[in-house]
Amino acid sequence: MAELLVVGSVALDSVETPFGQVQEVLGGSATYFSCSASFFTRVRLVATVGQDFPKEHVQLLEDRGVDVGGLSVAAGRTFRWSGAYGYDLNEARTLDTQLNVFANFRPALAENLRRVPYLFLANIDPELQLEVLHQMRERPRLVALDTMNFWIQGKREPLGRVLREVDVVTINDAEARQLAGEPNLVKAARAIAAMGPRTVVVKRGEYGALLLDDGAFFVVPAYPLESVFDPTGAGDTFAGGFMGSLAARDRVDRGTLRRAMVYGSVMASFTVEDFSLNRLARLAPHEIERRYADFEDLIRLERA
Amino acid sequence: MAELLVVGSVALDSVETPFGQVQEVLGGSATYFSCSASFFTRVRLVATVGQDFPKEHVQLLEDRGVDVGGLSVAAGRTFRWSGAYGYDLNEARTLDTQLNVFANFRPALAENLRRVPYLFLANIDPELQLEVLHQMRERPRLVALDTMNFWIQGKREPLGRVLREVDVVTINDAEARQLAGEPNLVKAARAIAAMGPRTVVVKRGEYGALLLDDGAFFVVPAYPLESVFDPTGAGDTFAGGFMGSLAARDRVDRGTLRRAMVYGSVMASFTVEDFSLNRLARLAPHEIERRYADFEDLIRLERA
Repeated sequence: MAELLVVGSVALDSVETPFGQVQEVLGGSATYFSCSASFFTRVRLVATVGQDFPKEHVQLLEDRGVDVGGLSVAAGRTFRWSGAYGYDLNEARTLDTQLNVFANFRPALAENLRRVPYLFLANIDPELQLEVLHQMRERPRLVALDTMNFWIQGKREPLGRVLREVDVVTINDAEARQLAGEPNLVKAARAIAAMGPRTVVVKRGEYGALLLDDGAFFVVPAYPLESVFDPTGAGDTFAGGFMGSLAARDRVDRGTLRRAMVYGSVMASFTVEDFSLNRLARLAPHEIERRYADFEDLIRLERA
Repeated sequence: MAELLVVGSVALDSVETPFGQVQEVLGGSATYFSCSASFFTRVRLVATVGQDFPKEHVQLLEDRGVDVGGLSVAAGRTFRWSGAYGYDLNEARTLDTQLNVFANFRPALAENLRRVPYLFLANIDPELQLEVLHQMRERPRLVALDTMNFWIQGKREPLGRVLREVDVVTINDAEARQLAGEPNLVKAARAIAAMGPRTVVVKRGEYGALLLDDGAFFVVPAYPLESVFDPTGAGDTFAGGFMGSLAARDRVDRGTLRRAMVYGSVMASFTVEDFSLNRLARLAPHEIERRYADFEDLIRLERA
């Protein structure tokens, strides 16, 4: 079992879906990621919050065994995001973004974090992703990054540079098309692989996820849920299950990558069952294994 | 190997996609279905065309071994459909529909067709689907039907009656939601199963297809194609591969149904590579087996 470092955002989210709404609940890419990954391995978190950040949120992560030594408290208010979803639940409409202390986030890794062998660069400025990567004392065994439309549009050049240095990119389908400038998703995934990463993971919301690894595709559906409550954080939760399961096995090959795709989907399927991290907070390991078995059954094709 | 009877439409289609356009080419639900199924078993076709229907189109079906004895030629013009697709290729915009001789189509099965053991009721008026079913001398081993928004809206009551009498329904995702009155696709599929059919197949275009059989789900992705040329007929081609492979094995169980889902996806993935039935017309059986093997690889999850 190898340790896993994540650098990203911790936020307070306000979310409205057709099924309810919540105000200033725990959110952020690094939060979902680390809580999800904590079910698989030891996670070390680097992020920043403001002085207003509720202590019980930190406690939740500590209860999950996440090392929050790298969570700095800066003068000012915590990053806030608010968004709304319509009935199709596939895309959030951002209502408001207040970067607050996150605007000045310059991650400085403590010495003990600079040799962690698995690294996830969550969705932050690609220049910061590069800075973090260059602070590592030795090249991690696996580096993955996530990104979004905002950086694809506004930080194309540094994004290109960090893509050349990572092993895995996780990205949603619309953003994959945007990054590659190519409407066909298969061509888009191949074009992104040609930018550097050996492995491309395309997240497709209710349609599951696509893996392109070393030229070969693998497709995993989303878990057939009867009620999806709030999709916020599903992508980062997926990434947490994906990277967490790889770090736990400390082995990256065709088999572990495909199983990581399923673990990512399993974890995401829990997150969307409730607001914020509520479902992950009450999740038991045996539920993960049971749902993994359900996934195996969902895609199993016996030979004639 | 058991025979397969299909009753549906034969049409002349005019189609525009971002990649080209064609005028009055061979189309129709029963056409795509029977050509696709002909790679698996002996297909008998019941449909109607007008006096203007080109002989070479009939020849194409005969060359595929399809029994066209039930293809009647009526006074008047052949059914015409014209539609256009945007870049996402997921939904056709119908530009024009001319029912012509299809408006008076009242399928009367010749005696030798009334004991065919596998029956597909392609997308026609549910009252006609019922009439066909009631002309059978004995209950076929497997009856499937396809339907669409037009009948869901306008012929709800007869559609409900025929649904109670069939084993399988194939339907696209938007229409599944419409038929069930339920936005969640998992709940919608279960609701449709509660209307009668033991097996529900939901076609999701570029996202693949979903099988609900005896309460259990199976999901197959679409084949990752680098270029999709024209999605017209993909759903009927899918149904042809699905029913054809079942009739070929003459066995309907969990294993054959799941493999039928893959054969359906394989056949549909060829159809969309060209306009009309062009790709199916030049398809070789070894290409089907090769792509089936690609599908197995695309969803294969080894145990740790």
